[in-house]
Amino acid sequence: MAKKRKWDQLRPVKITRGFMKNAEGSALIEMGETKVICTATVEESVPPFLRDTGTGWVTTEYSMLPRSTQERIRRDSVRGKIGGRSHEIQRIIGRVLRAVIDFEKLGERSITIDCDVMQADGGTRTASITGGFVALSEACSYLVKQGLVEENPLTDYIAAVSVGIVNDKLVLDLDYELDAAAEVDMNIAMTGSGLLVEVQGTAEEKPFSKNKLTEMVKLAEKGIKQLIKKQKETLSK
Amino acid sequence: MAKKRKWDQLRPVKITRGFMKNAEGSALIEMGETKVICTATVEESVPPFLRDTGTGWVTTEYSMLPRSTQERIRRDSVRGKIGGRSHEIQRIIGRVLRAVIDFEKLGERSITIDCDVMQADGGTRTASITGGFVALSEACSYLVKQGLVEENPLTDYIAAVSVGIVNDKLVLDLDYELDAAAEVDMNIAMTGSGLLVEVQGTAEEKPFSKNKLTEMVKLAEKGIKQLIKKQKETLSK
Amino acid sequence: MAKKRKWDQLRPVKITRGFMKNAEGSALIEMGETKVICTATVEESVPPFLRDTGTGWVTTEYSMLPRSTQERIRRDSVRGKIGGRSHEIQRIIGRVLRAVIDFEKLGERSITIDCDVMQADGGTRTASITGGFVALSEACSYLVKQGLVEENPLTDYIAAVSVGIVNDKLVLDLDYELDAAAEVDMNIAMTGSGLLVEVQGTAEEKPFSKNKLTEMVKLAEKGIKQLIKKQKETLSK
Amino acid sequence: MAKKRKWDQLRPVKITRGFMKNAEGSALIEMGETKVICTATVEESVPPFLRDTGTGWVTTEYSMLPRSTQERIRRDSVRGKIGGRSHEIQRIIGRVLRAVIDFEKLGERSITIDCDVMQADGGTRTASITGGFVALSEACSYLVKQGLVEENPLTDYIAAVSVGIVNDKLVLDLDYELDAAAEVDMNIAMTGSGLLVEVQGTAEEKPFSKNKLTEMVKLAEKGIKQLIKKQKETLSK
Amino acid sequence: MAKKRKWDQLRPVKITRGFMKNAEGSALIEMGETKVICTATVEESVPPFLRDTGTGWVTTEYSMLPRSTQERIRRDSVRGKIGGRSHEIQRIIGRVLRAVIDFEKLGERSITIDCDVMQADGGTRTASITGGFVALSEACSYLVKQGLVEENPLTDYIAAVSVGIVNDKLVLDLDYELDAAAEVDMNIAMTGSGLLVEVQGTAEEKPFSKNKLTEMVKLAEKGIKQLIKKQKETLSK
Amino acid sequence: MAKKRKWDQLRPVKITRGFMKNAEGSALIEMGETKVICTATVEESVPPFLRDTGTGWVTTEYSMLPRSTQERIRRDSVRGKIGGRSHEIQRIIGRVLRAVIDFEKLGERSITIDCDVMQADGGTRTASITGGFVALSEACSYLVKQGLVEENPLTDYIAAVSVGIVNDKLVLDLDYELDAAAEVDMNIAMTGSGLLVEVQGTAEEKPFSKNKLTEMVKLAEKGIKQLIKKQKETLSK
Repeated sequence: MAKKRKWDQLRPVKITRGFMKNAEGSALIEMGETKVICTATVEESVPPFLRDTGTGWVTTEYSMLPRSTQERIRRDSVRGKIGGRSHEIQRIIGRVLRAVIDFEKLGERSITIDCDVMQADGGTRTASITGGFVALSEACSYLVKQGLVEENPLTDYIAAVSVGIVNDKLVLDLDYELDAAAEVDMNIAMTGSGLLVEVQGTAEEKPFSKNKLTEMVKLAEKGIKQLIKKQKETLSK
Repeated sequence: MAKKRKWDQLRPVKITRGFMKNAEGSALIEMGETKVICTATVEESVPPFLRDTGTGWVTTEYSMLPRSTQERIRRDSVRGKIGGRSHEIQRIIGRVLRAVIDFEKLGERSITIDCDVMQADGGTRTASITGGFVALSEACSYLVKQGLVEENPLTDYIAAVSVGIVNDKLVLDLDYELDAAAEVDMNIAMTGSGLLVEVQGTAEEKPFSKNKLTEMVKLAEKGIKQLIKKQKETLSK
Repeated sequence: MAKKRKWDQLRPVKITRGFMKNAEGSALIEMGETKVICTATVEESVPPFLRDTGTGWVTTEYSMLPRSTQERIRRDSVRGKIGGRSHEIQRIIGRVLRAVIDFEKLGERSITIDCDVMQADGGTRTASITGGFVALSEACSYLVKQGLVEENPLTDYIAAVSVGIVNDKLVLDLDYELDAAAEVDMNIAMTGSGLLVEVQGTAEEKPFSKNKLTEMVKLAEKGIKQLIKKQKETLSK
Repeated sequence: MAKKRKWDQLRPVKITRGFMKNAEGSALIEMGETKVICTATVEESVPPFLRDTGTGWVTTEYSMLPRSTQERIRRDSVRGKIGGRSHEIQRIIGRVLRAVIDFEKLGERSITIDCDVMQADGGTRTASITGGFVALSEACSYLVKQGLVEENPLTDYIAAVSVGIVNDKLVLDLDYELDAAAEVDMNIAMTGSGLLVEVQGTAEEKPFSKNKLTEMVKLAEKGIKQLIKKQKETLSK
Repeated sequence: MAKKRKWDQLRPVKITRGFMKNAEGSALIEMGETKVICTATVEESVPPFLRDTGTGWVTTEYSMLPRSTQERIRRDSVRGKIGGRSHEIQRIIGRVLRAVIDFEKLGERSITIDCDVMQADGGTRTASITGGFVALSEACSYLVKQGLVEENPLTDYIAAVSVGIVNDKLVLDLDYELDAAAEVDMNIAMTGSGLLVEVQGTAEEKPFSKNKLTEMVKLAEKGIKQLIKKQKETLSK
Repeated sequence: MAKKRKWDQLRPVKITRGFMKNAEGSALIEMGETKVICTATVEESVPPFLRDTGTGWVTTEYSMLPRSTQERIRRDSVRGKIGGRSHEIQRIIGRVLRAVIDFEKLGERSITIDCDVMQADGGTRTASITGGFVALSEACSYLVKQGLVEENPLTDYIAAVSVGIVNDKLVLDLDYELDAAAEVDMNIAMTGSGLLVEVQGTAEEKPFSKNKLTEMVKLAEKGIKQLIKKQKETLSK
């Protein structure tokens, strides 16, 4: 399926709201064969460094089901610790989602976004951001409906996508096969107002020029606009 | 929904085969609001105690997604260890599924059954057994198709269900609400030929008589027969 | 020695009260070559979920000395975690002993039962229950004597024994050799009033019929009555 | 001191080669008050995924001394696990340094770069890259001198620097105080030939435009050229 | 009881050989109220640093049962790691016992000495050495009897005792009460030929002079001679 | 260099005060090629057992940088636990430094001494004590200057050195090469007033007589006097 896509096209995207009945917010996001379950949990407590400040926090955990991948991966719980890759990814997702929350409006409470990868075919961290935003948005609406906050603490939309250079050519939204072949792999998160929140690019095979960076960001912008449109449709249902 | 059920009725059961595209076998089992993803992974290696014996093994891991429950539960990977409850449950599931495998026919390889609870509303361990069997069965068929085994190592069907005593009355297939109110909680696994493989019952509130034990086993048998019928339908598709 | 026993006979049982001078309650239980040190520790605190409820808790830890077995076993402390088998066993022991305690009478305090296996020759979990009850009973008497509780929180006696099917025949109180040969292995805990508290049976080799289950429970009852008689003798000294 | 610097100036940089007598390569890098000890260790083994491929690997570990910071930080060894921040940083350093190594020329061996922060005043991850390169370069020369490789596996120079936006203005090489005040914080790694290897920027306070991204990369380039000049001077001594 | 002892007298000592039927060597040592179970396990493997050297190793593990003490101590397995005190003690015991083994005669195999403190009333580490020697000696005889070694690898007897300064006066073999009051606490291990193997003394309350050190060693020697006499009697039975 | 030293001479000693700008006290100690960074951290809290007693505590952590040694050593944080050797050493350092602190004068606060070995060439634990004392002394002066204590809680100087027997001859201050060849290895800590605080000696190869012990302590005393002179010079600057 990926082969028929044009280089500047997203894979088919599907976001299912309210996927997990127990959570204050949730979404199943599918980008091609990549599927991530995102849930938002509201808790009336904050980490120690925020106690008695009246402001809140958003934190994130990222994990993969053992058979989300071609070869089974060992559970972190069996290894007794969270792997470096999960740590890096969940830190990025957290930073990005925090960028669109007004913590004073949120008040002294936490929202935990859990991103559990059901199926991994490239782009799990960006799908987690795009889907995690929907779960976060549901949780914010829940807070408003419950009268727990006066104003919705959400300040903007946010979504993320990967771009890369494969055989010297730009490609949007890399699946696993493209990702494995990419010379450069980049993940970009952008708000609804078109501003950057996270730019993270690595030359896996071949260093790249400043011009290529500019082009990649432009291509990502195109994809992100479509993702945010999708988020809006989903959330307006 | 549970309230309309009769005491001797199962909750609505749905088993979806091939739910996870990467695994050698998989099933999503839904028993009422309880949903468990079961996958089977074939690996060409065995634990040390079986090396060079020519016989194989089936092992099981059980885990819950953080928001499978009403209140978010901490991940075992964050706690740095698998909790006692998960340990107990995955040991039981493993024992039960091993009862219907001929390890000589399986040959010197392992099948790992992963049971990841997406939504928990009581009966996750018995649902894991019933759904895990479908994943295991798919993996066995895969081994036959691939020519890796001469004969299918599966020796029988197997399924499990919970029964309990609530307000002095027998109830089949307890959901969370019934489970919390139960005086006795029992999990029973039985083969397609109607023989017992695991009987595990605990008086949570009130010790029970030998007669009650006999009645509970009979009630479980009724439910298990329906579950095995469901397995057969699912696997014949 | 085991070979001379009749199939419906217990191994020689010996319970030594007050075996550990520092504990609020303690017993050394010997069932044949199986020897378990049980201690009860009273602490004036409860787990978080019981704080300010005025009710208490009984919890259990189970461990084996490295050379309690034929081959030395690695310490859990060296492995950095408690193994699955220990977890499963200590959860069962805890559930069973809690069945004979009135937690309101106990008040907001905890009793921890430590079961340390000195020598393992089959039946360590059931010996832990039978001996753990004696330690628990001593600790309850201590609470009464100290004036910490008004009434003894103990509501009944409780003991446990294993039964099994070996070569198609029922056997009571399996030692290691019998256990290794057993087709079915079952552990049953029963109160002084003859009611069941825990029934846990597994077909290791061969599934079993409902009739066999009934017979096994009857045989266990016979053994448990003798064990409770022994507990009474020991505690009356 | 930082206040007197111009916005486009690096802090004073000092790199001391051969700082640790036991390592195959080592450097102490000082950027203002930030001090990092970098060592390179050559080992004649590779991770499992590279065995029998004839190609090698470069891996990195990053850690902070407890009093490298204003408030003492707990050791990871006492916490029993590596923190998320260390994990994220050491993964980035590793990716960057691997970009200038020809793994076929390196042959089937590993080089481990240890970055131990003695004093932290902002920019420890970029200082680790710049100093780590010097240690890596020394280790490569060692391999050549020892006749272990035919050709030096190093393909280019590489250094990294942070840039940021503070009060809407661009700043190069943020110290702790500037970093804490920054709206955007970006780390950029570039080769001697002026190509990008890693771009990682986060809007801590305020999302930023594509133009700002372009300006930040240009400013970083200016600083990195000076750092690579410094590396060349140091390595030519 | 301790109060009636003279300052230069040992507490009553009792050593029971063959206390644990499964081990290749074992002893229960009682020094007053201190009781330690010592077992020796022979394994036909050595740590990596000794592979293919033809020489063996003796290693030691030390642990306390939860209610060996007045207040229950948390298990290392629950804490997920071995505490610093246990680590220090087991390293000392290992060093001392290795001093009387000829590792070439032992051949490429290991003996593990497990010291499990059943009851702690001061002097558990020295009791572990004295009792551990008996277990080690039994294991060496076992190796001779089995024809696994040509000559007994034991080169001498070894025992240990504590001495201290309490209220400015020397005391031999401190129990818990004396130990808590001691200004200086010293543990000394000596061979059958009267030579020192380990001297470890700490001024808990008050630094001490070189003369006091000399006196303490002499007093320890007196006690150790009696302990070695006891070992000989025990082993000749 | 070590070879030219006489048997009763220390290696060249250098102590640099205030080596780490963030700590309340710090020193870099160099004894020949052994280099240890010592820092003292003052915290206004105490371990649980001292709460509300008005008295304080001194605790110590010891660690080695991965390339402080000839072969790289794995980090404790990667192994997930502190090794036995580090545990033993940091316990000894803590005991010794506590011997020269008046905890009532210190008040209810803690001082943590971190000893991080930069380069290891024998004698790291004794260097940690000698250098740790300088860091501790600086921290005490800091407390006085800040008006946090009325009187300096330091009661005396303290330093430590190793002595050994190599080829039947006494040697002071063993470097790695001598240590590896030593028949006996001893670490001694002594106060400014010439009293012993810790004596810890082990016969690595050959048990030793009481006379040898006396001689070793005398030789250590000679070295320690010079070290304390060095401490005084350093602290008076």
